[in-house]
Amino acid sequence: MQPAAATFAAPDWPQDAWYAAAYDVEVGNRKLLARTVADKRLVLYRRTDGTAVALENACWHRLLPLDKGHIEGDELVCGYHGLAFDGAGRCTFMPSQDTVNPAAKVRSYPVLERHRFVWVWTGDPAAADLDRVPDLHWNDDQAWAGDGRLIEVPCSYKLVVDNLMDLTHETFVHGSSIGHRAVAEAPFEVTHGPGMVTVTRWMIDVEPPPFWAQQLQWKTGKPPGNVDRWQIIRFEAPCTIAIDVGVAPTGTGAPEGDRSQGVNGYVLNTISPSSDKHCLYFWAFVRNYALQDQRITTLIREGVSGVFAEDEDILEAQQRAIDEHPDKVFYNLNIDGGAMWARRLIDQMIAAEGLASHLEAGRQADAAFATVVGA
Amino acid sequence: MQPAAATFAAPDWPQDAWYAAAYDVEVGNRKLLARTVADKRLVLYRRTDGTAVALENACWHRLLPLDKGHIEGDELVCGYHGLAFDGAGRCTFMPSQDTVNPAAKVRSYPVLERHRFVWVWTGDPAAADLDRVPDLHWNDDQAWAGDGRLIEVPCSYKLVVDNLMDLTHETFVHGSSIGHRAVAEAPFEVTHGPGMVTVTRWMIDVEPPPFWAQQLQWKTGKPPGNVDRWQIIRFEAPCTIAIDVGVAPTGTGAPEGDRSQGVNGYVLNTISPSSDKHCLYFWAFVRNYALQDQRITTLIREGVSGVFAEDEDILEAQQRAIDEHPDKVFYNLNIDGGAMWARRLIDQMIAAEGLASHLEAGRQADAAFATVVGA
Amino acid sequence: MQPAAATFAAPDWPQDAWYAAAYDVEVGNRKLLARTVADKRLVLYRRTDGTAVALENACWHRLLPLDKGHIEGDELVCGYHGLAFDGAGRCTFMPSQDTVNPAAKVRSYPVLERHRFVWVWTGDPAAADLDRVPDLHWNDDQAWAGDGRLIEVPCSYKLVVDNLMDLTHETFVHGSSIGHRAVAEAPFEVTHGPGMVTVTRWMIDVEPPPFWAQQLQWKTGKPPGNVDRWQIIRFEAPCTIAIDVGVAPTGTGAPEGDRSQGVNGYVLNTISPSSDKHCLYFWAFVRNYALQDQRITTLIREGVSGVFAEDEDILEAQQRAIDEHPDKVFYNLNIDGGAMWARRLIDQMIAAEGLASHLEAGRQADAAFATVVGA
Repeated sequence: MQPAAATFAAPDWPQDAWYAAAYDVEVGNRKLLARTVADKRLVLYRRTDGTAVALENACWHRLLPLDKGHIEGDELVCGYHGLAFDGAGRCTFMPSQDTVNPAAKVRSYPVLERHRFVWVWTGDPAAADLDRVPDLHWNDDQAWAGDGRLIEVPCSYKLVVDNLMDLTHETFVHGSSIGHRAVAEAPFEVTHGPGMVTVTRWMIDVEPPPFWAQQLQWKTGKPPGNVDRWQIIRFEAPCTIAIDVGVAPTGTGAPEGDRSQGVNGYVLNTISPSSDKHCLYFWAFVRNYALQDQRITTLIREGVSGVFAEDEDILEAQQRAIDEHPDKVFYNLNIDGGAMWARRLIDQMIAAEGLASHLEAGRQADAAFATVVGA
Repeated sequence: MQPAAATFAAPDWPQDAWYAAAYDVEVGNRKLLARTVADKRLVLYRRTDGTAVALENACWHRLLPLDKGHIEGDELVCGYHGLAFDGAGRCTFMPSQDTVNPAAKVRSYPVLERHRFVWVWTGDPAAADLDRVPDLHWNDDQAWAGDGRLIEVPCSYKLVVDNLMDLTHETFVHGSSIGHRAVAEAPFEVTHGPGMVTVTRWMIDVEPPPFWAQQLQWKTGKPPGNVDRWQIIRFEAPCTIAIDVGVAPTGTGAPEGDRSQGVNGYVLNTISPSSDKHCLYFWAFVRNYALQDQRITTLIREGVSGVFAEDEDILEAQQRAIDEHPDKVFYNLNIDGGAMWARRLIDQMIAAEGLASHLEAGRQADAAFATVVGA
Repeated sequence: MQPAAATFAAPDWPQDAWYAAAYDVEVGNRKLLARTVADKRLVLYRRTDGTAVALENACWHRLLPLDKGHIEGDELVCGYHGLAFDGAGRCTFMPSQDTVNPAAKVRSYPVLERHRFVWVWTGDPAAADLDRVPDLHWNDDQAWAGDGRLIEVPCSYKLVVDNLMDLTHETFVHGSSIGHRAVAEAPFEVTHGPGMVTVTRWMIDVEPPPFWAQQLQWKTGKPPGNVDRWQIIRFEAPCTIAIDVGVAPTGTGAPEGDRSQGVNGYVLNTISPSSDKHCLYFWAFVRNYALQDQRITTLIREGVSGVFAEDEDILEAQQRAIDEHPDKVFYNLNIDGGAMWARRLIDQMIAAEGLASHLEAGRQADAAFATVVGA
């Protein structure tokens, strides 16, 4: 059994991954945005054609954070001595001199926008694979409507993954909104495949908690009776979790596949590590009814914000406790089956990268040897 | 001569001791109380029968501080996943499963209430000895009345012991209330026995400082003339100090034992280390006149609070200076006789525990050897 | 190429130097002033004859910072137990005892006042050389008038030196007050001698920036046309920089030496290291016209304060970036010629002290050897 604290030795995440760095609306061509993702300090902005740029946030010259500067056209101008960098990180202007040192550049990161997020690839740029962007398509699908937020939480991103992979905690942390005894009592099933874990829980013929009772009433216009409630958690390694949630009046066939009488939502989450003890927790809640009703969007977003603030409080306290008890381990209950699989997949990704580095180093050593002894 | 900073290497207190963790009124059966005593993070509450409980403040499962949870009957329920623990620290409920892992428990500490404080034994539970609770009986003796407070001071508890063992500092730190030149000028006597040090100082025929002039006037109804003033400091290792203080009009026989014309109080202090640089300083001031007069109790408590705030300021600054000057030592003056003996007794307790551990380890090694070579 | 962070290994300044510890008006005989200069924690005050004293800020007895005490005549009385120290650091009073331990003293530092600053020598007192006080004579010269401030900046003093040795940054950091494109475009010349570096930049026939246009208008009473502008930066190792600045209407002969139609000022700067990442930045701005006009003095002081606040923001951010990127180096542009020479002179002073210590240690070893083997 490994000390809990040791499970957070740096870096505790895969490098070769797309991490959400910002909501799309946070990145513009007027204001520079500083973000730390996977221990990389980044500055984000948009070119005049709208494409997003992510550069290392330290000037080549004297390290001033580039977010202290400003944007001129497609370029970023440092706020200290005016060095300019293009979106690829190449320096294009140096003050008081006619020529620019061609070696002058800052690191540029592969970046793309998808599903309302700006994603950054923090590993080997050659390995940046568009197919590996996590699936949060509900977030800009016409059949779904909703909104979300970014929370910065002073804890390991893995604690947030644990939190989302077991919703039993709703009963104890969120008793006034979405939790009730049924969540802790209902059985659940864990399945897993390559890079994916699914936890499925159905609560049959239960009283709907306030959050869901309200939504059923919005949809049907009358107070609901008992419901069948579902939570289908889909984890995509290393840190994206889409949760299919909803309720339908008991007896209307939801468990068998007919959700037409119920209300359905997706809780979309992607949690980018900033450091070993800090993460960027992006979430959204989308629904598939009353799509045009901005009032419902706002009410749900504020309601979910309140629920997640309860989680923040728990997650911060948990991280502090881990730091204060370096000798203690995490023990597992039955409910931790999903989180255990999620962590196993994360660990496999990290280990595979270590192995890849090892093999690459060996290959280079062989090549060097071949050069020395070779033809 | 040892660097001052080195005198604070952790842990710098005996483990086998009763430390005050809270005033009795701070611990209840509605609200969980978190406290750190001798580097142990504790959560305190009362069972329905009123007895106090002290548990390790980290859930067995995922380390969440248990003070984030709530009390149900005699048990504490974790605020994350609902695990329940009884007063002995045994887990009695796990969510979503029928059986409870019998190994699931958190550490429980021996606890008792005496003299209006809740005391916790931080060492070997088998050694917890009721006779070793420090004597602060004046705090709930019918012949005395008064009140006190807890101050959390960011300094080693030993600096508070030093402070209280030499009251010369009253002249310089508390000049407007209890200090005057006489304290720094009067001779004093230090005596010591097993686990105890006494410092006695009499100031004969001196003008009473404001704090005492006021009390004499409350008792006698007229402005006082010169007084004989006494301070008899009784240190009980490792960190409890009861100070017999008072004044009586000069010539009425106080030095010979007749204090009937004067006013007498006890300053009761017990200072529990939290960490090497933080302590819980519990104090009370009790008097043996006008016992029913709550107005006097309040006025004295507020007055002493003001005096102790002056000490806090000094103690914090002193700890910072120690940290900033790791190469510097403490030098001793004549006035430090009491504090030097107090520290010597503390050091002996710590050393004896080290020796006991050493002997125990030796005994176990012998036993193991006997097993290996034995019959 | 050396990592940027490594250039800040402690101590990163010469010891044998006069460092400004305070403005003269900050040191009095009523109030003790605590300051940290070159990692020395000091307490400053004045004797009754007005001479300034700088003592180590920790009592010999129990390390309490002496600035918690008070001044009695020429002596400083500790705020805890009343030990008194004279201006040479000798203890002259101990409470409750008739004799004073003659070994009791705190370190006293050579101190002098010049050019409105109180200077402290932090190295070997025997080497304290009055001729090495940096030249900031304009600050109390009758031909000049002005005022200044102290800013405490959380960065290495070397970053402030860099900042002042290249004023190209005015274009980018101070665009609304003193910066314009001309500063970044005009050529400049760097010269250096023993312990001195000079950077000279003339901008001919340029539009005056607001700060200077205003001053010309104050002097001449009418809106100015184009000007010749000069910046002559004089660095005196290790950390004093006097900058001769001004503008004169183009064609009135300023480049040839006739500044009579223009306005001239000196920006006086001396930056004392407190620690590797903190410095005391003393500055003043003096002018040689309208000497009696306190309104102009105040307006300029407030204006320059605003300009320097922009620098503070940059300098703090730069230090943080250095700390966050321990693997990164500083690269140099043409504009860094002055700063490079300044740093070279600082490094030479530090290296020379290391060499001197080395030679002295060798000399003592030789002497010891001579004693052992000698007559």
